[in-house]
Amino acid sequence: MKVIADLCVIPMGVGVSVSRYVAECEKVLVEAGLTHHLHAYGTNIEGDWDTVMAAVKTCHERVHAMGADRITTSLKLGTRIDREQSLQDKIDSVRSKLD
Amino acid sequence: MKVIADLCVIPMGVGVSVSRYVAECEKVLVEAGLTHHLHAYGTNIEGDWDTVMAAVKTCHERVHAMGADRITTSLKLGTRIDREQSLQDKIDSVRSKLD
Amino acid sequence: MKVIADLCVIPMGVGVSVSRYVAECEKVLVEAGLTHHLHAYGTNIEGDWDTVMAAVKTCHERVHAMGADRITTSLKLGTRIDREQSLQDKIDSVRSKLD
Amino acid sequence: MKVIADLCVIPMGVGVSVSRYVAECEKVLVEAGLTHHLHAYGTNIEGDWDTVMAAVKTCHERVHAMGADRITTSLKLGTRIDREQSLQDKIDSVRSKLD
Repeated sequence: MKVIADLCVIPMGVGVSVSRYVAECEKVLVEAGLTHHLHAYGTNIEGDWDTVMAAVKTCHERVHAMGADRITTSLKLGTRIDREQSLQDKIDSVRSKLD
Repeated sequence: MKVIADLCVIPMGVGVSVSRYVAECEKVLVEAGLTHHLHAYGTNIEGDWDTVMAAVKTCHERVHAMGADRITTSLKLGTRIDREQSLQDKIDSVRSKLD
Repeated sequence: MKVIADLCVIPMGVGVSVSRYVAECEKVLVEAGLTHHLHAYGTNIEGDWDTVMAAVKTCHERVHAMGADRITTSLKLGTRIDREQSLQDKIDSVRSKLD
Repeated sequence: MKVIADLCVIPMGVGVSVSRYVAECEKVLVEAGLTHHLHAYGTNIEGDWDTVMAAVKTCHERVHAMGADRITTSLKLGTRIDREQSLQDKIDSVRSKLD
């Protein structure tokens, strides 16, 4: 099962600047070979369900290992069985209605 | 790794009444033996990370099998390594500050 | 326009224990006269759109005033124009499918 | 109070293709003069709290007017009082840690 996800990992209790933790999660996605796109409030990810979920777990493990005792994550998960759709397809579909 | 999660599964393209799909997800959580609490905008779940994530995947598979071609899910994931905390602990902690 | 909302306010940079900030938000909802229900990963709220949104803004203002320099909030907003539905209706609707 | 938001409006009961509703919301943001960035699972928005919230309400009104009887929206809201931060600042901050 393929999934399009949106991941926002928030380490708590480590101050107000959390970009180095987010950067670590970006590295996890690269290592997992997952197509992803960083935006200002999370990261779009596309891939096989199990691969994406394993990466999300690794993100939590790494961010804890960096010293964050508590993490709260928002994850959106989109699946469809009618047709294939990529991250770019979703954006193109909206943009085509704006022209 | 233990996780406290909040799951909101939204089947798309099956009309505006989706409670039978949500009920199916409740059954998945019962079958998985997971502690859970249904509220008006999702379900709190507490358990081992892998068990919770396997249940979330099963929810998508079941809801697709019921005829929903597209699903969008919101999932919150809370982990902490400083101490154990249950669903009830979180609620009690807030309530104790209200008295 | 009536809305059913789910609010999860996360103060950042104030340590891992945030229940006193969540408790303050509960007080805001009480003061606003809004029907609400605290769960382990947020608070369900039901009411007029503008009243709910004014309360959410007040939550941010109060939590900042308590000393949290940064806040990240997850808010779900459900509206429907086909019929009235309360927080309890949503739960009852799922439960009726479980019997 | 300035806010950085992430908006994902999901019309329910109108089929599995919802891009024309999302496109309408993009138009609302343009009309409101708000800086925004469409991604594959929502739209980042930056602006004054009240202006952003008025636009979110208009999105619900417009999508209902287009024929969607039910809408469920996920909205993230980030505020901070320690310093100014733009959408691009957030992305640059993460990218600088990746080099």
